[in-house]
Amino acid sequence: MASTTLTLSSKNYSSWSLRGWLMAKQSGIPFDEIMVAPDDIDARAEILLLSPSILVPCLNYDGIKIWDTLAIGEFLNEIAPDAALLPKDRAQRAHCRSICGEMHSGFAAMRSALPMNLKAHFPNFKVWSKAQADITRIQAIWNECLAAHGGPFLFGEFSMADAMYAPVATRFNTYDVKIDSVCAGYCDRILSYPAMQEWTQSAQLEPEEIEELEVEF
Amino acid sequence: MASTTLTLSSKNYSSWSLRGWLMAKQSGIPFDEIMVAPDDIDARAEILLLSPSILVPCLNYDGIKIWDTLAIGEFLNEIAPDAALLPKDRAQRAHCRSICGEMHSGFAAMRSALPMNLKAHFPNFKVWSKAQADITRIQAIWNECLAAHGGPFLFGEFSMADAMYAPVATRFNTYDVKIDSVCAGYCDRILSYPAMQEWTQSAQLEPEEIEELEVEF
Repeated sequence: MASTTLTLSSKNYSSWSLRGWLMAKQSGIPFDEIMVAPDDIDARAEILLLSPSILVPCLNYDGIKIWDTLAIGEFLNEIAPDAALLPKDRAQRAHCRSICGEMHSGFAAMRSALPMNLKAHFPNFKVWSKAQADITRIQAIWNECLAAHGGPFLFGEFSMADAMYAPVATRFNTYDVKIDSVCAGYCDRILSYPAMQEWTQSAQLEPEEIEELEVEF
Repeated sequence: MASTTLTLSSKNYSSWSLRGWLMAKQSGIPFDEIMVAPDDIDARAEILLLSPSILVPCLNYDGIKIWDTLAIGEFLNEIAPDAALLPKDRAQRAHCRSICGEMHSGFAAMRSALPMNLKAHFPNFKVWSKAQADITRIQAIWNECLAAHGGPFLFGEFSMADAMYAPVATRFNTYDVKIDSVCAGYCDRILSYPAMQEWTQSAQLEPEEIEELEVEF
């Protein structure tokens, strides 16, 4: 049997770790988690959003090392096609990859201004205009997908796209972001998804190592 | 026959347009180019690196719209597998996707400090330390791939990874960046690749619409 590990950093703060972990869970493959020590300088850089290249999560599957989240999703979809991390229909698959890519390379203003922080709650948090533009675009993406495929998730059943946007659902919750009812319903479904609940519970148990979360701008 | 278009912005400045275009060329599918007007506000934002979600290049293939560069690469690899945009070997494919993903979401310091500008040449350009860290990492990526597969390109023949890193080769040339001889040889091969030459010639003919290139930091 293949020895499979997934290297993660903080469960409370690391949005990329969450994405990779949700994909691995969804794939159904057994894997062991390796948590990077919180005083590791690279891990801290990633947590503080300062790392240009995000090297967690990292999947090690029988000696094959994969350190990019989209690459992990594609790999898991190849080895566990029945989990349908990507839609079976070619046009839907292209759409799914487009919005996954948009999350992967974009929304820098929202990611910096509203860092993932599962334990926190900031009622009436003031969202600045550039982050608001990202939030508006994300709602448009979600509405289009939910209307096209009828939910409950972006492409019907839970896919890679839901894993990519799951940290956004937690941010909307943490920062009390005002969103439309369709998107609010989708956030509720993400936050109550069994794997997401499991992650959230682990995050609650995580020791508080970082007192202050610095952001770039 | 499928009607296929690829929407691009500036050939001189838009690194994402170059990546998507090289992938489309490599795939061998026939396509028409649509150039976004340089006074289009979204195109300008993208050119000026200010857009959080990069909506060019956009491939429209028989009604399927794909607006993320990695998604375009994956789609082209599906419809034109003989072009081998992704390596045939699973472990190599995972490696290829990891470094493509790293380029897609990372190297922000280098991308901001050394924007693509094919027509320009800045001898002895001073690279600041954060951008230098990106450049060092990119050289490590290239050296590892070239050593593992023997060149001439990152995974042997020209692949999606070469398209992703081609704008970096142009930046190293434009900004006179000091790199090791293995990487310098690779840059030369990228810059003299026939499709790259064709793009570069088009860029030379592009009218000068943008007087000053603003960068974020």
